[in-house]
Amino acid sequence: MKLLLLFTLMATILSLAAPAVYGDEGMWLFNNPPRDYLKKQYDFDATPEWLEHVQKASVRFNSGGSGSFVSPDGLVMTNHHVGADCLQKLSDEKHNYLRDGFHARTRAEERKCTDLELNVLMSIEDVTERVQAAVKPGMTPEQAFAARRAVMAEIEKESLDRTGLRSDVITLYQGGLYHLYRFKKYTDVRLVFAPEQQIAFFGGDPDNFEYPRYDLDVCFFRVYENNKPAQIEHYLKWSQAGAKDGELVFVSGHPGRTDRLATLAELDYLRDVGFPFLLQRLNRLEVMLMAFSTRNEENARQAREELFHVQNSRKARVGGLAALLDPKLMSRKKEQEKKLRAKAKEDDSLRDARDAWDRIAAAQKIRASNIRKYTLLEGGRDGAAGFNCELFHIARTLLRAAEEKPKPNSKRLREFRDSNLESLEFQLFSEAPIYDNFEKVKLADSLTFLANEMGADSPLVKKVLASKSPSERAYELIRGTKLKDVKLRKKLYKGGKEAVDAAHDPMIELARLVDPEARKVRKIMESEVEEVQRQAYAEIAKVKFALEGTSTYPDATFTLRLSFGQVKGYEEEGKHVPFETTFAGLYQRSAEHHNHEPFNLPPRWVEKKDRLNLKTPLNFVCTADIIGGNSGSPVINRRAEVVGLIFDGNIQSLALDFAYSDEQARALAVHSAGIVEALRKVYDASALADELTGPK
Amino acid sequence: MKLLLLFTLMATILSLAAPAVYGDEGMWLFNNPPRDYLKKQYDFDATPEWLEHVQKASVRFNSGGSGSFVSPDGLVMTNHHVGADCLQKLSDEKHNYLRDGFHARTRAEERKCTDLELNVLMSIEDVTERVQAAVKPGMTPEQAFAARRAVMAEIEKESLDRTGLRSDVITLYQGGLYHLYRFKKYTDVRLVFAPEQQIAFFGGDPDNFEYPRYDLDVCFFRVYENNKPAQIEHYLKWSQAGAKDGELVFVSGHPGRTDRLATLAELDYLRDVGFPFLLQRLNRLEVMLMAFSTRNEENARQAREELFHVQNSRKARVGGLAALLDPKLMSRKKEQEKKLRAKAKEDDSLRDARDAWDRIAAAQKIRASNIRKYTLLEGGRDGAAGFNCELFHIARTLLRAAEEKPKPNSKRLREFRDSNLESLEFQLFSEAPIYDNFEKVKLADSLTFLANEMGADSPLVKKVLASKSPSERAYELIRGTKLKDVKLRKKLYKGGKEAVDAAHDPMIELARLVDPEARKVRKIMESEVEEVQRQAYAEIAKVKFALEGTSTYPDATFTLRLSFGQVKGYEEEGKHVPFETTFAGLYQRSAEHHNHEPFNLPPRWVEKKDRLNLKTPLNFVCTADIIGGNSGSPVINRRAEVVGLIFDGNIQSLALDFAYSDEQARALAVHSAGIVEALRKVYDASALADELTGPK
Repeated sequence: MKLLLLFTLMATILSLAAPAVYGDEGMWLFNNPPRDYLKKQYDFDATPEWLEHVQKASVRFNSGGSGSFVSPDGLVMTNHHVGADCLQKLSDEKHNYLRDGFHARTRAEERKCTDLELNVLMSIEDVTERVQAAVKPGMTPEQAFAARRAVMAEIEKESLDRTGLRSDVITLYQGGLYHLYRFKKYTDVRLVFAPEQQIAFFGGDPDNFEYPRYDLDVCFFRVYENNKPAQIEHYLKWSQAGAKDGELVFVSGHPGRTDRLATLAELDYLRDVGFPFLLQRLNRLEVMLMAFSTRNEENARQAREELFHVQNSRKARVGGLAALLDPKLMSRKKEQEKKLRAKAKEDDSLRDARDAWDRIAAAQKIRASNIRKYTLLEGGRDGAAGFNCELFHIARTLLRAAEEKPKPNSKRLREFRDSNLESLEFQLFSEAPIYDNFEKVKLADSLTFLANEMGADSPLVKKVLASKSPSERAYELIRGTKLKDVKLRKKLYKGGKEAVDAAHDPMIELARLVDPEARKVRKIMESEVEEVQRQAYAEIAKVKFALEGTSTYPDATFTLRLSFGQVKGYEEEGKHVPFETTFAGLYQRSAEHHNHEPFNLPPRWVEKKDRLNLKTPLNFVCTADIIGGNSGSPVINRRAEVVGLIFDGNIQSLALDFAYSDEQARALAVHSAGIVEALRKVYDASALADELTGPK
Repeated sequence: MKLLLLFTLMATILSLAAPAVYGDEGMWLFNNPPRDYLKKQYDFDATPEWLEHVQKASVRFNSGGSGSFVSPDGLVMTNHHVGADCLQKLSDEKHNYLRDGFHARTRAEERKCTDLELNVLMSIEDVTERVQAAVKPGMTPEQAFAARRAVMAEIEKESLDRTGLRSDVITLYQGGLYHLYRFKKYTDVRLVFAPEQQIAFFGGDPDNFEYPRYDLDVCFFRVYENNKPAQIEHYLKWSQAGAKDGELVFVSGHPGRTDRLATLAELDYLRDVGFPFLLQRLNRLEVMLMAFSTRNEENARQAREELFHVQNSRKARVGGLAALLDPKLMSRKKEQEKKLRAKAKEDDSLRDARDAWDRIAAAQKIRASNIRKYTLLEGGRDGAAGFNCELFHIARTLLRAAEEKPKPNSKRLREFRDSNLESLEFQLFSEAPIYDNFEKVKLADSLTFLANEMGADSPLVKKVLASKSPSERAYELIRGTKLKDVKLRKKLYKGGKEAVDAAHDPMIELARLVDPEARKVRKIMESEVEEVQRQAYAEIAKVKFALEGTSTYPDATFTLRLSFGQVKGYEEEGKHVPFETTFAGLYQRSAEHHNHEPFNLPPRWVEKKDRLNLKTPLNFVCTADIIGGNSGSPVINRRAEVVGLIFDGNIQSLALDFAYSDEQARALAVHSAGIVEALRKVYDASALADELTGPK
């Protein structure tokens, strides 16, 4: 899989709260773990010490994934496909690390990533009361949204000033709770080891989200402080034996987003509007990137990471949409909603919740009629879909920084709040390569998309295209902008509005031209959808709590969670799918496909076959509750030792976005024994293996 | 390219009439060729004998392409990508003729195609008066449409009964003229020779619609009568020397559809609705077919032809859309329309035309709000996009045949008129293979598309899905239907309504369930769009004639046309692109791409390189006015000898849908000398080469 967080995807308007949980369900907060259940069901005591250790050994990749410390010298383990962003950016026409892999045999050979930021969660503080108190009765949704944004920025700034740690107020239970998370931040992150993508992603798109699997989807980094490997107190020890059938395991990672408690109206929106539009865009991007890639090898190299990302998202969303179109899932959801509404009706203390479902339904209408424009002009973290290129994203960031930074911290767009500026600057000044021709192709395609969706005669499109065809306009913009120059970016950022205005950079001028409409649609989405939902879902959360008690977990928010489950196979079409695969299975599957792409093996895997113990486990499955963003999460045993590395979910797990099940849905992991076997015998990386396991 | 007729594509609601022509512009009717211009410009006299000879040597592939007779023994030349449909259908898990090629060394080895029908145009008769007379003043558009359909069916039936020839009334100038075309039909068509797709489509998607090119896109069939090679009076002789720089050449073939005279309102529709929706669908199909194909080699084989078709259409339509988004083209169109409207305003005899543009504009609104539903439920010749599988198409044909055939000929849906039944039955009873799993994947995907577009809660979608997910429903339908059995199809077709009803076949029942809505939206498109346009465009045509005279050609209609032009290179980005490429260039381009797909050469091309004269021309370009459907057209010289074989247009030619230009737009052809060189030296096909050229 790729359980990479799907950033590109949909306006992240969140959904709902407290479920009744089943079996091994749950993406638990570290400050509210299911200790009783674990004790009762598995006779395991998740002590505060155990929890703190695991929490602080867990690492968030800000590019969208998870990882963990696996040595006292700052060694971080994650998936190859999480590290891919860095591999892509370090590569050039002569060095294709994504395809060929990378191995630093000495510390000196470790390569610094251009813009990778890692976060470690150091503390959690409940700030719900202060946030809630900022919203006064009688405020309009717009006022409420602004007040909440202001108090959150204030809390974060205070914390940053006091502790020096990155401080984010996290919205949980869609607004039921607000927690202040403080992170230690690492920005000197160096690449240590990556295998060839061919073995990390063996089986490619056809095998993605499928099981049995045979992927060595692993990658190692090392964090540095003051130019030396950081010394890490809380790191995970290695289990040589690794995951065993039936064993209780834990997954500590950053699930990105779930919609488990969405109302029927929101699920209908996702099924009929959100997912179809997203897939329309992903299909378009996939075809464009494929067509670009087949032209020549260098194009293919430039587009590789993005193409993977798009294909992975597409396959995940096709699965999610299938779940939404499955009447069984929807009738389960109907049943749940009926119960909640009945409870709200009968219990007078819950009377404020009675119209919550209708308010959410009304918000979906606004959402549906704005999502296209919002996606095109504003988009999510990956930027506006109508202007799909790096240089536009940079231009807009500079333009907005000049406008936002002079404002009081509490009134800025959220991404420009003080507590986030350091991370924003780190990205903005990245030396990651930008390829003119690739930028041009993407921009021309996305300008065409913009014209198609908004109509070529719409005033905004006419202004954007400036009497040129999309491809002429893209050519002119990419040729004309000077923003590839990082020094210039720094100068303009520092120079503020005056410098940005004086630059007359065509890409900045384009961003300026689009900005009023982009801000307008963002405001609609924030105050008329997000805020309305937040208030209504908070009411529904109260009903849930009244009905089912409070021992539960919130929907995923790309913050640290603890999941657990058993290592366990499953039944499919009458056959038993065993819990693990082996190296022997890898060679067999490749042979069945005549070693043809995407089932071909890297040359050294062919050469070194005889050295391997073919019975070594390679991948395995467990019932832990995970989703996109969990990629790279460690799988650990009761002693908090690494027994595996999450890298995917099976096809059945794609429904977990909406509901947990342990019948067939499984988390997929690379086996710890398989990692070490490959490091030692295929890659001759014994120093690295020794660092994990201790000398052999 | 592939100038294959894009059947899948858009409701074929046609556009407009008589242009002023420029230079070598024109897709001329054989009964109204530009004799004066040819005489004056090129000193060439297109005598009636010359025209009859070329007309009767030209062949239409009913699967969507062109060809020509090239020997007295029924040998037919076309493109590999036109023959691909037959190659695909003759292949199975053990024989992949599409990939590996085919060569019958004896007549006995020639393989009969499962369902290929070829047509040769034998005569043209003007029936405009009789058709026009059927439409009485005061009729509603619906009545007018029905009256016209009735009289056309009547004329065709009379002609069929009298001559035994396939008889079609063709609508020209969007209703300005009606001609009765009579065709000799060949249904025993045998495959003689095809090269590997790798060389036929060398360069794949990246080089498609590009130039310089290096494709041996050729394929040979032979028509049989009474189990013997048909004896052909009018066949084209071969020019060994082939096309020369600057030479006047002709192209005789079947351009599928142009929109050159569409009003601005219709172009706006195409730009903002028609093309974007079509591309949305093509992107979706491409991603689905690619994902299916990468799973294993057998999947790839099954999906090959369809994937090619989709990718080819996509690239063509991306180019067409780019033309529509080019302000230069649109302002040229605006200028034209302004002149026409001014003329209508000043000339009282043209007063009926004055509101024609507004009527067309109003029809575009209806078209825009119905095109999605129409495409999903009814579609074009390739069937309903919401039910994208062979078995549904078969089921619907059986269902409708049972309903339509008992009606009077003149009242039937057009595809069931008497004069078309033989062709329809030929397709319906085809033994072409149907693959369950492929059908299931396509049907599940298209049912999802249907649910996305119409909303999962719409009554029709709920009926269609029957409380199942799209993939469960698809599985159940494909497993349940018995229509793979051709004998059963024949029985049900013969048995009529009673037999079809009694069959209780789930796929037929599905077709039945959809039919009322499908017919309804078809009726809207026919009477409220097509008919309104037809009447309005006929009025506009009168204005054109008044303004520019009558010596012109109608928009393309997949009927035989004569184009002409010069063999000629062009300038691009300051560089001269020479008129021809050679075998040497082929090897060079492959080497530049390290012989990687899609630039890899078939093994025998590597082995036989030394035997080849590398200076032999392989491809060349000319200014002839062509479009999709012209694939496989012969390029002939003044003596009507084959000098080449049309197979594509360059990127600039994709704008020809809307306007001709000879500045950069070029038709691409395989050179006649290149064909013979390859046949003799790479394929050891000297008997075939001798049949073309006479013994060497």
